[in-house]
Amino acid sequence: MWGIIATWRMAAEGVGKAADILKNGGDAGDAIETAVREVEDFPYYKSVGYGGLPNEEMEVELDAAYMDGDTLDIGAVAAIRDFANPVSIARRLSKEKVNNLLVGEGAEKFAHKEGFERKNMLTDRAKIHYRNRVKELTAQEIKPYSGHDTVGMVCLDTKGKMTTATSTSGLFMKKKGRVGDSPIAGSGFYVDSKIGGASATGLGEDVMKGCVSYEIVRLMRDGLHPQEACEKAVAMFDQELKERRGQAGDMSLIAMNNKGEWGVATNIEGFSFAVATENQEPIVYLTRHVDGKCVHEPASQEWLDDYMRTRMAPLEEK
Amino acid sequence: MWGIIATWRMAAEGVGKAADILKNGGDAGDAIETAVREVEDFPYYKSVGYGGLPNEEMEVELDAAYMDGDTLDIGAVAAIRDFANPVSIARRLSKEKVNNLLVGEGAEKFAHKEGFERKNMLTDRAKIHYRNRVKELTAQEIKPYSGHDTVGMVCLDTKGKMTTATSTSGLFMKKKGRVGDSPIAGSGFYVDSKIGGASATGLGEDVMKGCVSYEIVRLMRDGLHPQEACEKAVAMFDQELKERRGQAGDMSLIAMNNKGEWGVATNIEGFSFAVATENQEPIVYLTRHVDGKCVHEPASQEWLDDYMRTRMAPLEEK
Repeated sequence: MWGIIATWRMAAEGVGKAADILKNGGDAGDAIETAVREVEDFPYYKSVGYGGLPNEEMEVELDAAYMDGDTLDIGAVAAIRDFANPVSIARRLSKEKVNNLLVGEGAEKFAHKEGFERKNMLTDRAKIHYRNRVKELTAQEIKPYSGHDTVGMVCLDTKGKMTTATSTSGLFMKKKGRVGDSPIAGSGFYVDSKIGGASATGLGEDVMKGCVSYEIVRLMRDGLHPQEACEKAVAMFDQELKERRGQAGDMSLIAMNNKGEWGVATNIEGFSFAVATENQEPIVYLTRHVDGKCVHEPASQEWLDDYMRTRMAPLEEK
Repeated sequence: MWGIIATWRMAAEGVGKAADILKNGGDAGDAIETAVREVEDFPYYKSVGYGGLPNEEMEVELDAAYMDGDTLDIGAVAAIRDFANPVSIARRLSKEKVNNLLVGEGAEKFAHKEGFERKNMLTDRAKIHYRNRVKELTAQEIKPYSGHDTVGMVCLDTKGKMTTATSTSGLFMKKKGRVGDSPIAGSGFYVDSKIGGASATGLGEDVMKGCVSYEIVRLMRDGLHPQEACEKAVAMFDQELKERRGQAGDMSLIAMNNKGEWGVATNIEGFSFAVATENQEPIVYLTRHVDGKCVHEPASQEWLDDYMRTRMAPLEEK
């Protein structure tokens, strides 16, 4: 068996490429890195890699992580600027003995010495988004809005190796140096080839209050199906946050176990994700809540066409 | 009931001050911040705050975190330079709606705007350690050594509020921007006032592979005594790492539940910790392994005297 699951529609093309690698017996590390790079490279996705929206100082600061479920090796970068593929730097860091999580200027120095591709990640389109937002907010305090679509993936290869990876530009208008859950083991991602893996997208500040990815893997260790594990963890933690804080941030979790079974749970409407396994061609699903359960239905061609049209529509400065 | 437990002998004075606050009905947030600041301010501790050992570029980069177990609010800083009390900045960040984890220059900008005390954290003594280390390593590659004594604390106040906090300068000779487990929720710390809290010291790169602090809180949620929870989590994870990687990094965990019961487990020899509760004056313990269990015995006066003499001994440049 092989498989890969990933947050959001934007991951679909990458999932397709990863599926080609996996079905030919390729490695879960290579497959997931290829898939995430595809998302990072596409300029029209506003929340990952090139074209990602900037922080309040108009800098694109990126977070990314990679984890190997065989060895539990972790590599991650946070608040890194102007490198094309943070996920590849994260994967490279996972091979170091120590110094596996690097942030800011230190992460940039490491990436530079290692020869990773430099790239100005701030696109003209992102600048327009930034300037429009500043104009909208002239009367108010500048604050992040709820744009936080991290790409997170879990991957299983034919040898049983599992990996997980994340990549994001984080909250639009975040403070310089702000780090969310994406590079944080246990919160944004976790994987153990003996069990399975999980990854999160949503409001990082809330996801990390519950170590939700680790919790899902642990529930799968106790024998739960990935779907049960995701639903239980998200429902419980959403409830805890609402009881204690009056509200819970957006939170969507994907998971796959080492049999290629997968699950997804979310506390928002309209969550999309992409999945491919040995038994299933790459497909984009949308999740609805029905009687307190998460129900996943293939996205219609109309929805898919509309998605891309919206993303690539001309953008005017206000 | 009230109580506080903290990693290493170096926390003893801070634990004493916190005990005074707690026995007078003070807040667990104030108590733990006071206790950690005490450690940060003492120049002879090489791994926390002022006098902490620098990274490979001779910069003291500090990590710290604070978590409120009532609200699950988290604040943390990583790779922050030249502020006197990272734990206070972390606590301040925990009150923000988002942007709760800030790193590097962004963390410094925030702290500066908020008026936190600037301080050159690199002491003459730390410079001698650095230069001596460079000389030792001229024939080898510069690499971090196993000095990673984070101060981590868990605190319970008379109102039942629990908190946790950490502070560290991280690995001596770490790479610029390297972040360990200390500012990472679930790995370096976790607390939930409904259950209890835990905090870690050791090789951060390994601690974060297992989300060990969260795991201990989760075991306490299942009804385990803090001592059982610590021993089970540390033994299981130490074993996992050895099976998969051939070795496990140093790892010492402290925990307290919301009844003031506490526990400690470690995979090293010679771990010390400090604890005070309503029923127990502040005391420093040493942990030994006896028949596979962790046994805690009060440190002798001779050991305590020797500890401080060693820390404060004159240091010569080699």
